[in-house]
Amino acid sequence: MHDLLEGLLDLSGKDERPLTSRLAAQLRSLISEGRLKLGQRLPSSRALAARLGVSRNTVTYAIEQLVAEGYLDVSQSRRPVVAAGAALLTARCFDDLAPDTVSRPLSTWAQHLASSDWPPLYRGRPLPFQPGLADEREFPHDIWGRCLRHAANRRFQRSDPTSNDSALQAALLNHLATHRGISACPEQIIIMPSAQAGLALIARVMIDAGDVAWIESPGYGGAYAAAFTAGAKIVGVPVDTDGLRIADNAPVPKLIFVTPSHQYPTGYLMPIGRRLELLRFAGSVGAAIIEDDYDGEFHYEGRPVAALAAIDPDALVFYVGTFSKAMSTDVRVGYVVVPEAMIPTFELAQRHLGLLTSATLQTALAEFIERGAYLAHVRRMTRLYRERRDCLIGALTEEVGTRLSVDAPAGGMQLLVRYTGLTDDRHLSHRLLGLGVVARPLSEMLHHESQERGLFLGFAAWTNAELIDGAKLIGRYML
Amino acid sequence: MHDLLEGLLDLSGKDERPLTSRLAAQLRSLISEGRLKLGQRLPSSRALAARLGVSRNTVTYAIEQLVAEGYLDVSQSRRPVVAAGAALLTARCFDDLAPDTVSRPLSTWAQHLASSDWPPLYRGRPLPFQPGLADEREFPHDIWGRCLRHAANRRFQRSDPTSNDSALQAALLNHLATHRGISACPEQIIIMPSAQAGLALIARVMIDAGDVAWIESPGYGGAYAAAFTAGAKIVGVPVDTDGLRIADNAPVPKLIFVTPSHQYPTGYLMPIGRRLELLRFAGSVGAAIIEDDYDGEFHYEGRPVAALAAIDPDALVFYVGTFSKAMSTDVRVGYVVVPEAMIPTFELAQRHLGLLTSATLQTALAEFIERGAYLAHVRRMTRLYRERRDCLIGALTEEVGTRLSVDAPAGGMQLLVRYTGLTDDRHLSHRLLGLGVVARPLSEMLHHESQERGLFLGFAAWTNAELIDGAKLIGRYML
Repeated sequence: MHDLLEGLLDLSGKDERPLTSRLAAQLRSLISEGRLKLGQRLPSSRALAARLGVSRNTVTYAIEQLVAEGYLDVSQSRRPVVAAGAALLTARCFDDLAPDTVSRPLSTWAQHLASSDWPPLYRGRPLPFQPGLADEREFPHDIWGRCLRHAANRRFQRSDPTSNDSALQAALLNHLATHRGISACPEQIIIMPSAQAGLALIARVMIDAGDVAWIESPGYGGAYAAAFTAGAKIVGVPVDTDGLRIADNAPVPKLIFVTPSHQYPTGYLMPIGRRLELLRFAGSVGAAIIEDDYDGEFHYEGRPVAALAAIDPDALVFYVGTFSKAMSTDVRVGYVVVPEAMIPTFELAQRHLGLLTSATLQTALAEFIERGAYLAHVRRMTRLYRERRDCLIGALTEEVGTRLSVDAPAGGMQLLVRYTGLTDDRHLSHRLLGLGVVARPLSEMLHHESQERGLFLGFAAWTNAELIDGAKLIGRYML
Repeated sequence: MHDLLEGLLDLSGKDERPLTSRLAAQLRSLISEGRLKLGQRLPSSRALAARLGVSRNTVTYAIEQLVAEGYLDVSQSRRPVVAAGAALLTARCFDDLAPDTVSRPLSTWAQHLASSDWPPLYRGRPLPFQPGLADEREFPHDIWGRCLRHAANRRFQRSDPTSNDSALQAALLNHLATHRGISACPEQIIIMPSAQAGLALIARVMIDAGDVAWIESPGYGGAYAAAFTAGAKIVGVPVDTDGLRIADNAPVPKLIFVTPSHQYPTGYLMPIGRRLELLRFAGSVGAAIIEDDYDGEFHYEGRPVAALAAIDPDALVFYVGTFSKAMSTDVRVGYVVVPEAMIPTFELAQRHLGLLTSATLQTALAEFIERGAYLAHVRRMTRLYRERRDCLIGALTEEVGTRLSVDAPAGGMQLLVRYTGLTDDRHLSHRLLGLGVVARPLSEMLHHESQERGLFLGFAAWTNAELIDGAKLIGRYML
């Protein structure tokens, strides 16, 4: 009988899995492949353990596993028998399958993903000028850690604990009322696993395949991604120094995506006149507006402008915000303020798509805001990031000189550098990445025909010294 | 001049917003409504403060706000003037809009949500027998809180910190290899904000509108929701005591959703023979399988059976799991093990839809697993929940007697009660809810024509005494 398994089982090779799993897997294969036949009896666990040089427990556990799965039967004897349930497997039963089972078509959308250049991902530690990053080194990790621990120790149980935490809704609403002029009821705030999830959710709720969505050009790739996922026909609408310029000849939109606080990537602020024009236009054609206030907490000149949602509370505006810029990318919680009449729809849509955020995390965020830690951090970072913005502009001017054009953004965490004579910003970006600097090309963010070229540089997450070093590298390659 | 604002501004009413916001809002309205005209000059902030009985800072802040927004201009004088930018507003500019801006059509999917009866939501504290809930009272909140604090205090910064944490992937893979026989590489584990997000993501990646998806009948409402969101044509396939029975006459599926560990809601375990049959069938027609192991950690009879994904690692199987059942609903993190060749597609799809989970939370989960707290808790809860299952079956048998039929589930957190003579389980469920007991009707979970009726009862989150009290209530109404 011991000849039966001779040479078939081998646990000596290098493998990170536990011995029990490996033994079970090998026995399973032998049965599946028909090398152990229905009714054949295995050696005792003691004998098997001795032969393989493993503990008897290892063997016992593997046998129990295969019994539970129905491969082996020990009902008649202590020595396991290949079970009738496995008799389907006279030969390896999957031989008739196509060898490459995953090459079959994905959904049309999923197939398209391979050709998408958004989001750009950089592995490893962040590199200078990578946009959208807060400086983690400045974040009050200790206070945040305490808030999390308090939240985890909360012992009471709620029925539906994870959709939208009412304490967080209340704290956030108070902040948004004071700093953005938004008046809403707390239930209008839908908490999201990320701001991007909010964009995709709004698109999914508002858009049927073929509906027209306007996005800014140049504009944020995530807005394109969200509208595309929902099947929208996407129209890139050029921006000027006042932000998105209403396009008279473009197809009438169902959804308009804008970044009025600091246009992404140009940094321009949309003034009140353009805001009113946009609201009026959207209302007249029945379009919804997504107002993405991605880094709206950081204002350097003057005060933050009231949100579109604040100017006309009756307009169909979705205000999107995030904690990952103002606090830390580790947090990654976003939110959407939806029109009051849409609360039930969004709550249901959120559950159907599983767009939930840990209740513990939400409770901790509420405490972080309520105790003033959030506002204190935003204020401190506003001062710091403004200095860094000025430092980067100074360094770039010094290194690249007058052929460079930077419109100092009134706020936010990044700036756009335009450079006369630059024709291939992708190539330049690629070369700079090789030197350890992330400088995103403007041409990647264009959604209409345009000769605009430039580099998009994040300045928030780096010290002045790091910014100056990076500017020197750029200067060397731009000259 | 002071007559200009006479009777127009009033901050005496009850309002929870800060005075500054209220003053800014009132001034904004006066300008928007044309009651203050272009070029009109406001009183000095000192005079305005005195008149309104508020501090001068309150007024200054409100004025600055409106200047930033472009409503007022202070460039020529200290006393603010209604600005040219606001001249668009000769009358309230939204008068030409339809009054009910949110009544316009949502997407077809969003319109359908209103008629969806999933998920059932219960406000307030959880009620006995509400399914899917772990007992929070038994959870080691203190250990979990320490893990969270450690994770928050981690100071290093990563470039792409929030998609899928490699420490969590490694810890989870080790667990899945040992307890489910799954062999995979860590990158195959995609971390999700919830298991539901995983289901919806898989459907979105695999399904185009009109593709056929099979779901179990009776079956899990979340599977229906996920397939419906992706636009699938949904076919409910009846289950027997071995789980989903392959339907020869049904349209050929692109996606098959199953719960082989404990079928939802019947609790039956799919034996190896049916598993192999399913894998073979799916392979032959080119269908993908979603294996939802929603409460697969809790096994009471024998050992957990190897996952479908473990039986044939080359099959197109998506294994879905969650931490919210084994740990606490507050955690709400799920995951999907995807086929290796699909890692790039899923990573991109995850980012496009923003299905991200806080990096801090992921790091804390990795520590919770690595230090053994996860497995220790699962083992302790397995003993406790088995006792509770037995207690509930005993109490129901005592109260309702022999006309009751319960198939004691081999694992999991809930059981299905069938009752001869019960014709309207929805009505019974509704009456029981009025008495403070959640007993979900089986008929709500049917996706094919069937006369099956019953009640679905969660037993994990309640003590024996609570379970007995609930059983008595049910007994009273079933007799």
